[in-house]
Amino acid sequence: NLVDTPDGLKLGGEKREVTVLMADLRGFTSLSERLPAESIVDMVNIYLGVMTEVIQRYMGTINEFIGDAILAFFGAPVQRDDDAMRAVRCAVEMQLAMRQVNLRYEEAGYPRVKMGIGINTGFAIVGNIGSSIRSKYGVVGMLVNITSRIESYTVGGQILISETTRNACREQLRIDDEIRVLPKGVSHEMTIFDVGGVYGDQPLLLAEKSSEPLVTIAPLP
Amino acid sequence: NLVDTPDGLKLGGEKREVTVLMADLRGFTSLSERLPAESIVDMVNIYLGVMTEVIQRYMGTINEFIGDAILAFFGAPVQRDDDAMRAVRCAVEMQLAMRQVNLRYEEAGYPRVKMGIGINTGFAIVGNIGSSIRSKYGVVGMLVNITSRIESYTVGGQILISETTRNACREQLRIDDEIRVLPKGVSHEMTIFDVGGVYGDQPLLLAEKSSEPLVTIAPLP
Repeated sequence: NLVDTPDGLKLGGEKREVTVLMADLRGFTSLSERLPAESIVDMVNIYLGVMTEVIQRYMGTINEFIGDAILAFFGAPVQRDDDAMRAVRCAVEMQLAMRQVNLRYEEAGYPRVKMGIGINTGFAIVGNIGSSIRSKYGVVGMLVNITSRIESYTVGGQILISETTRNACREQLRIDDEIRVLPKGVSHEMTIFDVGGVYGDQPLLLAEKSSEPLVTIAPLP
Repeated sequence: NLVDTPDGLKLGGEKREVTVLMADLRGFTSLSERLPAESIVDMVNIYLGVMTEVIQRYMGTINEFIGDAILAFFGAPVQRDDDAMRAVRCAVEMQLAMRQVNLRYEEAGYPRVKMGIGINTGFAIVGNIGSSIRSKYGVVGMLVNITSRIESYTVGGQILISETTRNACREQLRIDDEIRVLPKGVSHEMTIFDVGGVYGDQPLLLAEKSSEPLVTIAPLP
């Protein structure tokens, strides 16, 4: 289960700059209490299959599936200039790929779902983590915990990124909103950004978020 | 990475009663910010190696390592009468095995650490979860989230179990404390129990928790 790495890379653990991406299906745990077990496992597997393909296309390293949650990172084992940028583009593609996931759900008679994604950039420890029997190339540190907190602020369909991720992006992002948060375990308020897409040479954009109410209420006669 | 299972077991996902055990090194993430990366990965690997051996001895299924966190369950793929009991005995052995972990840390010049364990029993969905490329026999559902919450209430050295786990245990437990909590995502208060050991034919006990203050303050002259 180890990742092949170029010669000279220390697998024993090293601190390096990575961009961590966490995603999950919002509200899926409650849903899992109401649907048949077979449907739930099928839903998770369809979703993870589609997202794995997208993450691999953007050269992300998948660390972990935890139920319907995905933990991936960019920048290890191989560091590239555009790690943060690829992570953000990957997230936009993942949100776009939810259309495909929900189409397959519809065919199978499952309910529609929405995904939230949190992204954070900074230093973390990467290396082969585990016991002699099961070891895996993974990431450890406060950066991961904070990414998880950022992701927990998402509502379905959202991509929230930290300021460090935003600053590490070379291309212009479409920022739909800016939120001040104080995650548990963090000593100061952070600004996180709701990303609607990436401009640049190859624009990749989500549908504009509507400011209209979801339900139109007819005026009283 | 699939688990071999007896004929007829549905791998597509089924709802069944399991006992979930979650453990982590309390305060380890903050520690990981202060120590060299090599030391942190070495510490995690020593700890996971020792705990894997204990969990396997008690026939637990390890689902996941997430950094220094362990997610294991008892009761799938094979259900046994004493699933909850084995989980609790396993937890006591794990706490006892921390002595061995800390001895190895001391030899290597690492700081001592303490582990917290949360245990919960109930229905969850088990099956092979993942994409076609990476699939794993795992557990999904609210039960896992609540176990994670229970574990988050622990201080180092503690084992906290839910009432359902306590009720599923055939042998008498040493209960050192009883705590009322309202975990996020749960509609009602729960009682959780601080387990100090198991009596029965083969007693397995942690050191008595001292009611003495940690620091003795000399009376004023």
